Amino acid sequence: MIVFLNGQFVTEDRAVVSAFDRGFLYGDGLFETLRVANGKAFRWGQHLERLRRGADFLKIPMPFPPDAWRGFGDELIVRNQMPDALLRLTLSRGAGARGYSPRDARNPTLLISLHAVPPADSENPPRWRVITSSVRLAATGPLSQFKTCNKLSQVLARAEADAANADEALLLDTDGHAVESSSGNLFWIEQGAVRTPPVADTILPGVTRAVVLDLCHTLGLPILETRLTPGQLLQTDGVFVSLTSIGVAEAVSLGRETL
Amino acid sequence: MIVFLNGQFVTEDRAVVSAFDRGFLYGDGLFETLRVANGKAFRWGQHLERLRRGADFLKIPMPFPPDAWRGFGDELIVRNQMPDALLRLTLSRGAGARGYSPRDARNPTLLISLHAVPPADSENPPRWRVITSSVRLAATGPLSQFKTCNKLSQVLARAEADAANADEALLLDTDGHAVESSSGNLFWIEQGAVRTPPVADTILPGVTRAVVLDLCHTLGLPILETRLTPGQLLQTDGVFVSLTSIGVAEAVSLGRETL
Repeated sequence: MIVFLNGQFVTEDRAVVSAFDRGFLYGDGLFETLRVANGKAFRWGQHLERLRRGADFLKIPMPFPPDAWRGFGDELIVRNQMPDALLRLTLSRGAGARGYSPRDARNPTLLISLHAVPPADSENPPRWRVITSSVRLAATGPLSQFKTCNKLSQVLARAEADAANADEALLLDTDGHAVESSSGNLFWIEQGAVRTPPVADTILPGVTRAVVLDLCHTLGLPILETRLTPGQLLQTDGVFVSLTSIGVAEAVSLGRETL
Repeated sequence: MIVFLNGQFVTEDRAVVSAFDRGFLYGDGLFETLRVANGKAFRWGQHLERLRRGADFLKIPMPFPPDAWRGFGDELIVRNQMPDALLRLTLSRGAGARGYSPRDARNPTLLISLHAVPPADSENPPRWRVITSSVRLAATGPLSQFKTCNKLSQVLARAEADAANADEALLLDTDGHAVESSSGNLFWIEQGAVRTPPVADTILPGVTRAVVLDLCHTLGLPILETRLTPGQLLQTDGVFVSLTSIGVAEAVSLGRETL
């Protein structure tokens, strides 16, 4: 496997960063995951725009002109002969002096890597057994709106799903409302409308979430942005999750309850 | 500078980790900072114990017997001839498959590094100008109790202090109570008692915080664990912050107000 790291195409074993990179020390960075199909990465524009807004907020300079990023990604797909893949962009603040102050870190790290797509039935969306995680997502203000490298809550939730032999974990906010799954946005169907929690406080504005909403508009399906508890989720007419890697997955159970 | 990385003593430029280390990708790790003086690192026991509890919680195996860690640190101090320094322990989950699941990551990364101590007057504690950060610390449950590598809130708060030409930033919780500074625990003096917020929800149980409390007990000073707002902080008889790197710093102003 070849990866792109700071302007060079290197083999995976040579893809190393300084142990003093602030990405490693503090999770001081951002990432995006894009779906690659038939040799093309989808929705570069939206993913790069979300990353750019996060980089603006964190004041991490974007190395290379953003247009060049797409070229690096395209070359990576060709070099690895991986026309079907996931493409991950990782931007960290790079190495700096010890301590939280980002003042002395001026050389950001850019990593672009390809990864296998989770196996899936090409006809039908995956059917997931979901558990409710004990991890609560707190409203951390603006930070929640960006795909940062501070992902321990999601790692813990996902580990709970693994331990329960489930496919995914549902996360609640500190008020007990269902907000998202460890790696995707939450949707449910009720009274003929597609519903999803509003993007606010704790909810990442997913690129695939936007695709689902666009599709509903196109199909003339009513959409409602609203909140609910896991108990209320059991009373709905269907639950699904949207995420880049596989598009949409149906939730067929929540804990011991069938959905 | 020589650093310890996964069993080897290497020069700083060779201290590299995989770009697929989950510490770099998700902040999936823990750290501790110890004060080294006269060639000895202080309070190994407490720091290692906090790290061990965090590693248990995150299910990151500790590489090498914990007793050996102290030997690595001692050797590092000798090799670098740095009898006065800060010693940082960083433990990450190491490289694994793409995605939040930690299932396939089985080779944790251990980094031990030395850093310069912030310059200080040996007679008097530093006098800090403090600002109130716009970043709110959310109660994220058990995670708050460990010194994890998810530190973007602290990085942002510290950057606000830098931008205001201040020495430190005070963080509030989502209820508006003052909880800690970007890198230390908060104390104030009121009605003859030393006061500090209780360790719960959002407050990291600092090793130096415990030293301050022990000292107050020894001196027979009354201690109260309680909460207050930044406005109330202005009415107290003195405010200070405890942190490993310099011990105790006095806060002399909060924003435009003198303390």
